[in-house]
Amino acid sequence: MTYCVAVRLDEGLVFLSDSRTNAGVDAVSNFRKMVIFNKEGDRLMVLMSAGNLAITQAVRHYLNHPEPDAPSIWNATTLFEATQVVGDVVRKVRDRDADELQKSGIEFNINLIFGGQIKGQAPSIFQVYAAGNFIEATVETPYFQIGEAKYGKPILDRVITPNTSLKEAAKCALISMDSTLKSNISVGLPLDMLIYPNDDLTANHMKVIDERDDYFKMIHETWGKRLRQIFSEIEDPVW
Amino acid sequence: MTYCVAVRLDEGLVFLSDSRTNAGVDAVSNFRKMVIFNKEGDRLMVLMSAGNLAITQAVRHYLNHPEPDAPSIWNATTLFEATQVVGDVVRKVRDRDADELQKSGIEFNINLIFGGQIKGQAPSIFQVYAAGNFIEATVETPYFQIGEAKYGKPILDRVITPNTSLKEAAKCALISMDSTLKSNISVGLPLDMLIYPNDDLTANHMKVIDERDDYFKMIHETWGKRLRQIFSEIEDPVW
Repeated sequence: MTYCVAVRLDEGLVFLSDSRTNAGVDAVSNFRKMVIFNKEGDRLMVLMSAGNLAITQAVRHYLNHPEPDAPSIWNATTLFEATQVVGDVVRKVRDRDADELQKSGIEFNINLIFGGQIKGQAPSIFQVYAAGNFIEATVETPYFQIGEAKYGKPILDRVITPNTSLKEAAKCALISMDSTLKSNISVGLPLDMLIYPNDDLTANHMKVIDERDDYFKMIHETWGKRLRQIFSEIEDPVW
Repeated sequence: MTYCVAVRLDEGLVFLSDSRTNAGVDAVSNFRKMVIFNKEGDRLMVLMSAGNLAITQAVRHYLNHPEPDAPSIWNATTLFEATQVVGDVVRKVRDRDADELQKSGIEFNINLIFGGQIKGQAPSIFQVYAAGNFIEATVETPYFQIGEAKYGKPILDRVITPNTSLKEAAKCALISMDSTLKSNISVGLPLDMLIYPNDDLTANHMKVIDERDDYFKMIHETWGKRLRQIFSEIEDPVW
């Protein structure tokens, strides 16, 4: 499995993904789940993927190698159009592979988060389904998760609003990831994190986080300790 | 869906369940998930159920109406034997219903936690699967969850060990439930909680918790507030 989360804030966007892939416990390996498409000053787009690795790699391949003169994420004039391209590519892979996968009893399984900014327009994030359709984040639901989403959802629900700062949202995403790592062995380091301030149109604030990263180590140690502390400070039931 | 959790501690057992059932968003209703089987001074057993409501109700019916002279949870000499009876009853319901359910495209879906104490023996908890087989809690894995388990797992992983006190475990189970209620609308109040001290052999410490319960209200308000407080106290990333 995998865990990816993206947040849309007034200040910008935050993307975080793990890198654990497993196809059974004897086939655990590391594959990055985040790809960045960037033409500096023009557009910055991020794709994070969960699901069958062959499917997600095929989707990435087609996004990176568009047919000449066809609609692509590079010539799309809006992020909505670019996300339609992503959905079309998912459908293309499904048309090629889904029936064959079914013969082996394998479901066509892919979940994507796609987002970023095209110059002059508002940044946004989208969740793209296996059917190639998609939804956009809103003020009421400013984040998307894919993969092993449930362990890390409570802290997002309690903290994230559109006016959360970028740094706070990054911290919250890392705590959400830390809870997931703690409770699910199929999610693992290293992490890829991109903090995207509005109108940046670069991937300058990209960070790869492994077990030697001091900030993540601090989060990992402090959060568990402080959780147990506030837990012990809450009075026991008296019934 | 539903959420149930049971913990086995050196001091005794803790059981907690919600009461929300849904078969689609237009068919949400309340059914208790916890049944207590008690012959005071002889045996105390608790069954908590998740899955298809018709299946779980049929299982309860057969447990309450054993055939004369057949093995039952009332004449079992060990908790292991009693859990075998529960597994056998699951298989009986499956033999009757599974094929018919499949014709309607419905999977035979049931998950049970069964536990308690028979006089003179150690208390324990078991998780019973849809196949009627089961596993027992251990020192390394002293709790079981069924239903919407993931939201509330991180706090259990961080707090629960066999030497956690009964009251602390009850508090932890309620926080785990509160996180689940916050993030998943298909889990709901009222809650049933049984705190079982070793060798009690009664259900004296049974508690029904609804939105008017002061302790749960305090947990609900305090935990979210303290979480946000420790969140804000952790320094922001500096990258």
